[in-house]
Amino acid sequence: MSDNAVIGKSVKRQDLLAKVTGDAKYVADMQLPGLLYARSKRSTIAHALIRRIDTSRALALPGVKAVLTHENVPRVLHAGSPHPRSASVTCDQYILDDKVRYWGETVAVVAATSEEIAEAALDLIEVEYEPLPAVFTTEDAAREGAPLIHEREPGGNLVLPPVKVSRGDIERGFAEADLIIEGEYEGGRPTPAYMEPNACMCQWDGNGNLTVWISTQTAFMVRGIMAEVLGLPLHKVRVLVDHMGGGFGAKQDLFQSEFLCALLAKQTRRPVRMEYTREETFLGGRTRHPAKIWLKQGFKRDGTLVARQARVVFNSGAYGSHGPGVTIVGTTAMTSLYRCENVDLEGRCFYTNSPIAGAFRGYGVVQTYYAIDIQMDEAAHKLGMDPAELKLKNAVRDGDIAPSGHALIGHGLEDCIRRGMQEVGWAALRQRARDAGVLRRGWGMGCEMHGSSAYPGIKEQGNAIVKMNEDGTVVLLTGTAGLGTGAHTALAQIVAEELGLRFESVSVTHGDTDVVPWDIGAFASHTTYLGGKAAQLAAAEIKRQLFERAADLLEAAPKDLESVQGVIRVRGSDRSISVRDAVAPRKGVPAAQFVGSATYHPTKSYSFAAHFVEVEVDTETGQITVRQVVPVHEIGKVIHPIAAAGQIEGGIQQGIGHTLYEDYQIDLKTGRSLNANFVDYKMPLSMDMPPIRTVILETAPDPGGPFGAKGVGEDPIVAIGPAIANAVYDAIGVRFRHYPIKPEQVLQALREQRAAATAPSKEGVAA
Amino acid sequence: MSDNAVIGKSVKRQDLLAKVTGDAKYVADMQLPGLLYARSKRSTIAHALIRRIDTSRALALPGVKAVLTHENVPRVLHAGSPHPRSASVTCDQYILDDKVRYWGETVAVVAATSEEIAEAALDLIEVEYEPLPAVFTTEDAAREGAPLIHEREPGGNLVLPPVKVSRGDIERGFAEADLIIEGEYEGGRPTPAYMEPNACMCQWDGNGNLTVWISTQTAFMVRGIMAEVLGLPLHKVRVLVDHMGGGFGAKQDLFQSEFLCALLAKQTRRPVRMEYTREETFLGGRTRHPAKIWLKQGFKRDGTLVARQARVVFNSGAYGSHGPGVTIVGTTAMTSLYRCENVDLEGRCFYTNSPIAGAFRGYGVVQTYYAIDIQMDEAAHKLGMDPAELKLKNAVRDGDIAPSGHALIGHGLEDCIRRGMQEVGWAALRQRARDAGVLRRGWGMGCEMHGSSAYPGIKEQGNAIVKMNEDGTVVLLTGTAGLGTGAHTALAQIVAEELGLRFESVSVTHGDTDVVPWDIGAFASHTTYLGGKAAQLAAAEIKRQLFERAADLLEAAPKDLESVQGVIRVRGSDRSISVRDAVAPRKGVPAAQFVGSATYHPTKSYSFAAHFVEVEVDTETGQITVRQVVPVHEIGKVIHPIAAAGQIEGGIQQGIGHTLYEDYQIDLKTGRSLNANFVDYKMPLSMDMPPIRTVILETAPDPGGPFGAKGVGEDPIVAIGPAIANAVYDAIGVRFRHYPIKPEQVLQALREQRAAATAPSKEGVAA
Repeated sequence: MSDNAVIGKSVKRQDLLAKVTGDAKYVADMQLPGLLYARSKRSTIAHALIRRIDTSRALALPGVKAVLTHENVPRVLHAGSPHPRSASVTCDQYILDDKVRYWGETVAVVAATSEEIAEAALDLIEVEYEPLPAVFTTEDAAREGAPLIHEREPGGNLVLPPVKVSRGDIERGFAEADLIIEGEYEGGRPTPAYMEPNACMCQWDGNGNLTVWISTQTAFMVRGIMAEVLGLPLHKVRVLVDHMGGGFGAKQDLFQSEFLCALLAKQTRRPVRMEYTREETFLGGRTRHPAKIWLKQGFKRDGTLVARQARVVFNSGAYGSHGPGVTIVGTTAMTSLYRCENVDLEGRCFYTNSPIAGAFRGYGVVQTYYAIDIQMDEAAHKLGMDPAELKLKNAVRDGDIAPSGHALIGHGLEDCIRRGMQEVGWAALRQRARDAGVLRRGWGMGCEMHGSSAYPGIKEQGNAIVKMNEDGTVVLLTGTAGLGTGAHTALAQIVAEELGLRFESVSVTHGDTDVVPWDIGAFASHTTYLGGKAAQLAAAEIKRQLFERAADLLEAAPKDLESVQGVIRVRGSDRSISVRDAVAPRKGVPAAQFVGSATYHPTKSYSFAAHFVEVEVDTETGQITVRQVVPVHEIGKVIHPIAAAGQIEGGIQQGIGHTLYEDYQIDLKTGRSLNANFVDYKMPLSMDMPPIRTVILETAPDPGGPFGAKGVGEDPIVAIGPAIANAVYDAIGVRFRHYPIKPEQVLQALREQRAAATAPSKEGVAA
Repeated sequence: MSDNAVIGKSVKRQDLLAKVTGDAKYVADMQLPGLLYARSKRSTIAHALIRRIDTSRALALPGVKAVLTHENVPRVLHAGSPHPRSASVTCDQYILDDKVRYWGETVAVVAATSEEIAEAALDLIEVEYEPLPAVFTTEDAAREGAPLIHEREPGGNLVLPPVKVSRGDIERGFAEADLIIEGEYEGGRPTPAYMEPNACMCQWDGNGNLTVWISTQTAFMVRGIMAEVLGLPLHKVRVLVDHMGGGFGAKQDLFQSEFLCALLAKQTRRPVRMEYTREETFLGGRTRHPAKIWLKQGFKRDGTLVARQARVVFNSGAYGSHGPGVTIVGTTAMTSLYRCENVDLEGRCFYTNSPIAGAFRGYGVVQTYYAIDIQMDEAAHKLGMDPAELKLKNAVRDGDIAPSGHALIGHGLEDCIRRGMQEVGWAALRQRARDAGVLRRGWGMGCEMHGSSAYPGIKEQGNAIVKMNEDGTVVLLTGTAGLGTGAHTALAQIVAEELGLRFESVSVTHGDTDVVPWDIGAFASHTTYLGGKAAQLAAAEIKRQLFERAADLLEAAPKDLESVQGVIRVRGSDRSISVRDAVAPRKGVPAAQFVGSATYHPTKSYSFAAHFVEVEVDTETGQITVRQVVPVHEIGKVIHPIAAAGQIEGGIQQGIGHTLYEDYQIDLKTGRSLNANFVDYKMPLSMDMPPIRTVILETAPDPGGPFGAKGVGEDPIVAIGPAIANAVYDAIGVRFRHYPIKPEQVLQALREQRAAATAPSKEGVAA
């Protein structure tokens, strides 16, 4: 990092003081004169037609200003298609419908002068349902003659046609194998549980322009879909995003509430704010896709992986949302991580009358790599190999084709595995005596790779504008969102580094679609990679102008100049001038102000990680405790070490939660939500966290990223899960193939293990 | 206009609905949680030292949160100079001082939880003054041994060293003259009287960033000076300007209140708003510079102007503000309008203990052209010539050197005079019999020229960014301010025309220094000329990108394309595509978003006008009534005819006010303000306005302006004054050489005229 003055340093985050002083404003903090408060009435049945909906008593309540139901909101179709257009990117959801498809779906909204009145009015809305048969599991949804949740292509309850990926010759692969392992894996229904519940506020002005304040990762997508649904050109919709309390992917969706908020504001001619309760973040939010994966792999005696076959099934819930993307990305990811010439994969995604699954950190890959990495561990044991050595042997490397279809750069995965083995003394750990008492410890490891801007088939684009003020300070205008990750600080570092300014001389303007250049949104771990590179290129354009001016003053050629920490020097001489003086006015020449803009079409990049985990299993309570984690990440050039480490630690915390505790449950008879609150939905808190010794490698910088940087946002949530499951196997000899792994399941498995011990031919494997 | 689809059309102004519905928010409409209200205590003496100032009783009043006086505000010097830095661009004013220099100067400010409490607290502040001798007129200020108002170079009470302009040989000029006329002319003290009183609101965030909401013409200047005075880098000061209720030049200054508002907000850690009362817009605002001009010109018998000599004296009041600029521009302007080879001019500007004069529509030229154009009329009568013919003969023309030092383009002034003569049937009017009764009518005419971006010696710069959204609509980001003139509508027209879009497809983002590119400010009639050209160039950059993409689709070369009203065509073929479709996503290619930016260094341009006026003088009451005005303006390409005509009508209304009614008066013994309110300060209202038949010529478009457009903002206030004075002479034979011309002066002059009629050798000329 010695060559860089600003990047690679953990500078003070630009949003730090605002956040610790409580000065930072979130949408729910905002006030406008005449503001109305909106609340949603939600269905108490999972699948039904609405026979009658009577809002007259609600409307009669003093303070109630408007009530919307499916009867008085527009029924909008997506341009040129027969499909409804509103929240779901899959185009299968009306703003409000005369049918409900899951328990908790919005059937009406109220705007009133206080939240209390709005809440009271919900009870006065009478809804008469005609129940329909409901399905909650993908098995039931896939069954011949199952109740149809939508009338859509490709027919049945499939969200999209099956995703099929095939390479090489799967039959020959298995024929060559000395060992074939087959297993069924299952992922539960964790939710993102962001600190800041979804919130939006809408206001129309006298010219028919709509302003939307919203907590979203994708302001320009919100603008685009809002404009389409409301029939407005894009420049009449302004979307404003300031501080956000997390998103984790789920806030790259729309949620009906934005449209309803806008329509309420239009009807009442007053600003309207709609904030989810915590319960509604479950009912109206997005979960990870519950998944079932059948996986079969073939290995040669020396560990070489020769065949991989998988059938993946995702449960999309009542609407499609990101089901297509998750199915494509999650399935395609199985072509990689461990190289395999013969691959045969199929991914399917079904509608059910369950809560809506959507985009969520790890986007399909969490589920499929969980299966792969547990099966690799199992294979190693069966082959009598060290699991880490088996993974190292098969790890993808430079030139291999990534899931995106591009060639990988570098050997990041191998580096991560090797460094992790060294950090924890892996070889010695393998040789140690195993615990035999009540508390048993075990070590496991898991791997992952994750792309930045790497969605197959999508040509992405990053944009940035940089303005240099007449005192040499600069403003970066970026459309990237700050979910709370410190992304804008990293972007400011990149601009400062490129221009040779001090970090404090750069400020960032973001979150206003009227003023910042278009942005695809903050997801796919690409904010630093894509938005950062665009910012670097825009800064370079300013630098060109700045050096031209400075060259005159220094009597040098622009190409001979360099700038560091606010001073421009002629290389190899003692001539220099501060940036401030270079732009200052001089006799006959006014102060300079420069504007630079850049558009960047990224290459695809991949980051890598190997997580090494120690767990302790209490064989009397079934409790699994993660004792320590050593995550090793290869993410190219690191811009802000503490922020990158923070991403890794946060991902591990979330991953521990998903693997051991978190599961949003519904009653499988009625579809009723069972734990839509933070009392019954368990998450690890900061006091529950084990020590984490994060190692960040910069061994495979990506030429497509700013100064070689790659993404890190999603990576850490992927490998922690199988690492824990593998460590549990190491501790107690029980192979779990699902998450979350709950104490009662551990106890049950241990009971079965003891029973099996009496029948020596049977292996200790739990369902 | 037939070649243009959008410019040259009076499209519906973008701010129209917001303004007529009351939806438009001005600074005084804005609310923030915890807002405090600030009020100013003002001096009751014109020149004094503050011996003691006691704020303890005010601070003890419940609800008062802070009181600032000279004792607890920083005493800031301008970087590298011994002079104070705050409001006055002349660097002669502290934020608050221990000396007061005019009656009504701020000596303390209070921030409280309501305006009423803040107002009440003012009375509780005790100030003890030590009076100093005061001067109110420039004669007194210039006198040897006069009390010094500032201790400054160049010494005495001069604001700047005398401005001297000399061309040719003035002695030889007068020697060649057949007629020499000499006279003294005097201009009063009109004020801009904008509808929206000055207002600002300041808030600091947890990171020490300052946001300023303000009604200003020069947001970036406010940012720069605020940053300097408060010791902040520019990117930590954000200045926001939305709607404005007029400025007329005066709001290109700062007013102490911004600094005080910011300091109060910093001290109280709460947002603070300070709004002037109407009275304070007089006391703390800016007036036109009262002026005294001695002018002597020599003519040949055939009317050729051969010599012009002038001594101009401006009264700056207590601080310098724009005194230097007004003196330079007003004096230099006398080199032109009517061509003259031998010129000798001197302009001086004095401090007095009077209200502060500043920038005001017509900026020094109103005063000096009043003198010239009345003396030209007098010369014509003495030479036995038609005044219009005399002016036509001497009018500046193509290639003549303008006051800015550049060569003039075209023959706009001649065109205006000729067309006006034709419009009113001037020749016949000259021949008509004169009224002899109580009500006497007369016709007069006056001329003017005014520069856009034409300050001598200043290299100006316009900037713009244009973003095209993925549906083909665009947003213009401009730093130009909208004083209420419709300037942003004109800029949107220019962008639409350049890009070949419909007007409705363009929106404008402005008034936020964090997001828009730097702008010099809205003054000097250059918003359309300079800001408009920058917008055109930025749009052209987008067009280049758009045509590249469209060319692929239309299988044509970009150079063969043209776009009109949202459709791109291949010239000479029937192939076309809508802009919307051209940017829309296609298989494998995402939707396009383009960003273009431009910086423009303008040439200097001049607009021209001749005003023809009919007045009626009531010889019994002395009342002068303007019966009709025919203004003829040559302003290059007209972008928005109604808005341009609106500027002209408004300028004429303001000019009638200044010539006949408006004069902000002070008591010449104490300096006390006498008519700082709209009851005693008289202005013509809409019902007082005569018919105006505006003629706009486009005969001399300027290649430096967008589509050839030039400025129009300041022009109409200049020529109306001398036209009225000349018409009064035509009506009653009395020559007035000052403004405002009041009924009692008319009556007095008529009495003198009747007395002089008994002594036939004396001419009918008033003082």
